[in-house]
Amino acid sequence: MRTQVAIVGAGPAGLLLGQLLYRHGIDNVIVERRSADYVLGRIRAGVLEQGMVELLHQAGVGARVDAEGIPHDGFEMALGERRVRVDLAALTGGKRVTVYGQTEVTRDLMAARREAGLTTLYEAEEVALHGIESESPHLECRYNGEWMRLECDYIAGCDGFHGVSRQSIPATKLTTFERDYPFGWLGLLADTPPVHHELIYARHERGFALCSMRSAERSRYYLQVPAGERVEAWSDDRFWDELSRRIPREVAAQLVTGPSLEKSIAPLHSFVAEPMQHGRLFLAGDAAHIVPPTGAKGLNLAASDVSVLHRLFAAIYHQGRTDLIPRYSPTCLRRVWKAERFSWWMTRHLHDFGQPLDFDERVRQAEFDYSLGSHAGLTTIAENYVGLPYETLE
Amino acid sequence: MRTQVAIVGAGPAGLLLGQLLYRHGIDNVIVERRSADYVLGRIRAGVLEQGMVELLHQAGVGARVDAEGIPHDGFEMALGERRVRVDLAALTGGKRVTVYGQTEVTRDLMAARREAGLTTLYEAEEVALHGIESESPHLECRYNGEWMRLECDYIAGCDGFHGVSRQSIPATKLTTFERDYPFGWLGLLADTPPVHHELIYARHERGFALCSMRSAERSRYYLQVPAGERVEAWSDDRFWDELSRRIPREVAAQLVTGPSLEKSIAPLHSFVAEPMQHGRLFLAGDAAHIVPPTGAKGLNLAASDVSVLHRLFAAIYHQGRTDLIPRYSPTCLRRVWKAERFSWWMTRHLHDFGQPLDFDERVRQAEFDYSLGSHAGLTTIAENYVGLPYETLE
Repeated sequence: MRTQVAIVGAGPAGLLLGQLLYRHGIDNVIVERRSADYVLGRIRAGVLEQGMVELLHQAGVGARVDAEGIPHDGFEMALGERRVRVDLAALTGGKRVTVYGQTEVTRDLMAARREAGLTTLYEAEEVALHGIESESPHLECRYNGEWMRLECDYIAGCDGFHGVSRQSIPATKLTTFERDYPFGWLGLLADTPPVHHELIYARHERGFALCSMRSAERSRYYLQVPAGERVEAWSDDRFWDELSRRIPREVAAQLVTGPSLEKSIAPLHSFVAEPMQHGRLFLAGDAAHIVPPTGAKGLNLAASDVSVLHRLFAAIYHQGRTDLIPRYSPTCLRRVWKAERFSWWMTRHLHDFGQPLDFDERVRQAEFDYSLGSHAGLTTIAENYVGLPYETLE
Repeated sequence: MRTQVAIVGAGPAGLLLGQLLYRHGIDNVIVERRSADYVLGRIRAGVLEQGMVELLHQAGVGARVDAEGIPHDGFEMALGERRVRVDLAALTGGKRVTVYGQTEVTRDLMAARREAGLTTLYEAEEVALHGIESESPHLECRYNGEWMRLECDYIAGCDGFHGVSRQSIPATKLTTFERDYPFGWLGLLADTPPVHHELIYARHERGFALCSMRSAERSRYYLQVPAGERVEAWSDDRFWDELSRRIPREVAAQLVTGPSLEKSIAPLHSFVAEPMQHGRLFLAGDAAHIVPPTGAKGLNLAASDVSVLHRLFAAIYHQGRTDLIPRYSPTCLRRVWKAERFSWWMTRHLHDFGQPLDFDERVRQAEFDYSLGSHAGLTTIAENYVGLPYETLE
């Protein structure tokens, strides 16, 4: 089989790239290790930056997010009983975010890909990348029990943190940066009305909590739990009880509990690999970088990588601009590191790190206090939350 | 001898407090370990926040700072050859700072104190504070070879980091927070025209440099040097040569060198003692907190403490509001910690810490890059630099 761009991974990054390339008239094939149902079953992020919603429109899949996504003009930070609203729209000149599950984005992109008649090889096993430093790279994998070879001009690695793409770059060519956090997020999904119409990020002496939602009838809540905690230790009752203690009393009084549809623990991790391109392989999204979920930047960062990558491929195929290839990584990394910083900043200020009350901790308190009390400080939070401008290659 | 408020220390904090109390009709005596000439000979800060200039006016000593101080509407940060101007006036709605040496502030306050006929005991030796937990505290010292006792209602500790005041509070009642930095500032004073009409804070791979001034004919320059460096190792020629390498080439081309009037090395230190009041003793300025000089907050922070303290004494003596006493420390500390944070932030981003290029360093770079590239980010720098609003007791 032969295509122009081989995409590894059929998550939202790979699917979105495929759809944008299709609209540029660039042929592409996606190779995915899992089944379509498995990909659709993953419960992930749910807050989309405006830039990502615009990119979905460019990809021709903006109709349902417009109809069903819930625009949010602000969010709250709760500190014990104190509530501070971050008025995104007022602070950023009218920008907002949209609450719309990653699962729904994936579903929309899958439908569009089917309609366009593009090839996706699901359940492709033992995917291996070859010749990425040459002018004729190819993929090999086992598909339907047969070995197959996919020839291509370029490979887009959209296969996440554990994927094969980043591992295909020689270790000597990569520099990695990482940070672990001594806690995870225990998430619970329930068909109950959200406790509040906006997200509430709660800092509390018992640990962080987040009140979020997927729709007017579906809530998503999170609790900070120690690293290594087992989900079996958390009955629904224990979850609801603990959540009630960490959010302001007047909010807790509104909480509607119900049986969980899903409950899982995700570790928190910061990671960046540099550069994001090697030879004819381009990394996008989690394959190149991970952020902790505080601030909802993971999916959005994958989208901004894809916004750079699809325009790069368009410039290569329509204008012969292979000279732009070396600019891909530095262009993406400028925005990646700012999002890494914001995700780290939000994580640092909202979680309990068991930090002794020393100079660093007092300075941290002063920084948070200043940021929440200053219009300029709140603006820095708001403009990062709605998403910094997309970078361009030129 | 008896007075209402005994002030320990005749630096700018003590003198300013004395003058403000005098205008409230509150009697005060200052006790100072050094001679007047020694106090005047110390070369210190030179950038006054607008709030401090207004306080000097309230104290009746605003004429000369108005006539001879140089208003600055902005300053620059240089990163290698890149120059970023922080337009203080535009970013803060017209606020500015005034370049006017601490020595000149001290001179003006000394003159006013002489004119008011207030008592200052210079060269008072072995000053000791007694009965600060009682209702009738007193000071003892040796003055002109005789032991003397100064009875008072309250004591204001304005005697700096090494002074006796903070040390008079039982150690069990104080919590201290500190941070040392692995470098110092080598300062040089010269009667040469400043290289630029605004201050330039330069981050460079060879280390930090600051181009500052005292007047149109007097320059003040600083270089980051390793902790423990000896001033004898730095000839004037070596200083000028090193300075030229750390600032942008187009700035260095304008540098006018000349013989140094003074050259000294100051260590960098962050320090806060909590609380700032114990019994009838109130700490103000360096007696309670130290900041590194990056951002010029030390003198200004002493002034904002004094702005709270003189109003507290006015409320006590004119309205009997002793109930406000417990509010002094938390009121001051809110602003102190924000200034500590800003001074630490400026120090962190402008100096070379010999930091390995790890996740923390990349996040730091992204933070600085974001702050200098965002209007909101620059506004946070500008509003801290011109000085956050003074806190009030009520």
